[in-house]
Amino acid sequence: MTDKPLGNTLVTQVGIVVKDIEATARAWSQLLGLPMPTITVTDPVEQAQTEYRGERTPARARLAFLPLGQVTVELIEPLGGPSTWQEHLDAHDESVHHIAFEVQGMQDTLAYLAASDVPLIQKGEYTGGRYAYVDSAHMLGVVLELLENDR
Amino acid sequence: MTDKPLGNTLVTQVGIVVKDIEATARAWSQLLGLPMPTITVTDPVEQAQTEYRGERTPARARLAFLPLGQVTVELIEPLGGPSTWQEHLDAHDESVHHIAFEVQGMQDTLAYLAASDVPLIQKGEYTGGRYAYVDSAHMLGVVLELLENDR
Repeated sequence: MTDKPLGNTLVTQVGIVVKDIEATARAWSQLLGLPMPTITVTDPVEQAQTEYRGERTPARARLAFLPLGQVTVELIEPLGGPSTWQEHLDAHDESVHHIAFEVQGMQDTLAYLAASDVPLIQKGEYTGGRYAYVDSAHMLGVVLELLENDR
Repeated sequence: MTDKPLGNTLVTQVGIVVKDIEATARAWSQLLGLPMPTITVTDPVEQAQTEYRGERTPARARLAFLPLGQVTVELIEPLGGPSTWQEHLDAHDESVHHIAFEVQGMQDTLAYLAASDVPLIQKGEYTGGRYAYVDSAHMLGVVLELLENDR
């Protein structure tokens, strides 16, 4: 455990949960005059080691990224299975799910946040790094995502 | 009317509607290790010329800004009266209300968006500029705010 704050205060991502990622990605690209983004799928649980509320989950999602300067808008279409993405879509419909910060020292940061009443919701691995969502909505008005990229 | 897209694709603000701006601002500043922000109040309608869904409204809000790089997190506590802030709080509780872009040529941009099925929700003036919220949630998953600052 550590008592130092997050240490990095640059927002790098705004994540939006949607029902139809093609339609939403097309609307973003047309309205803002951006190229249509590639749509990818998160890795399967064997590779991503996805955990949601302490349990391993097969949940996956389709993703699209729109670069808007320092910030990337991430569109997320849940593909079923228990996840923070599906939970958010069921409870709040299409809307902003999280804002993301890059961190170094994921474990220390998660320990600091858990000690500050901001527990882990979901975590997983991706090629080149790992992510964690923490339950800060009751305190900050939004879920935070931590991204740790290997150097 | 114009058919050119937004023209500016840098997100400058993430706006979060909250019930108790002191508590939320304190949580942000403590968790991220930032100074406690000043809390201000939007100008009265005579000055701000606030319009919500085509009608003049006396609605005001308390605001606090947390600088996070290119992006500022804006906390918004509605103070009553008809507004997009109060509407969002009633319908969606504390959560992300909008993401903002700076624009030049507010009227042309609003005309382009209205012709693209993204109508105006609310607009107003502030010292040095003006804002407009547009109803893009059904298309983009989030409300957009346009900010036009006088040079």
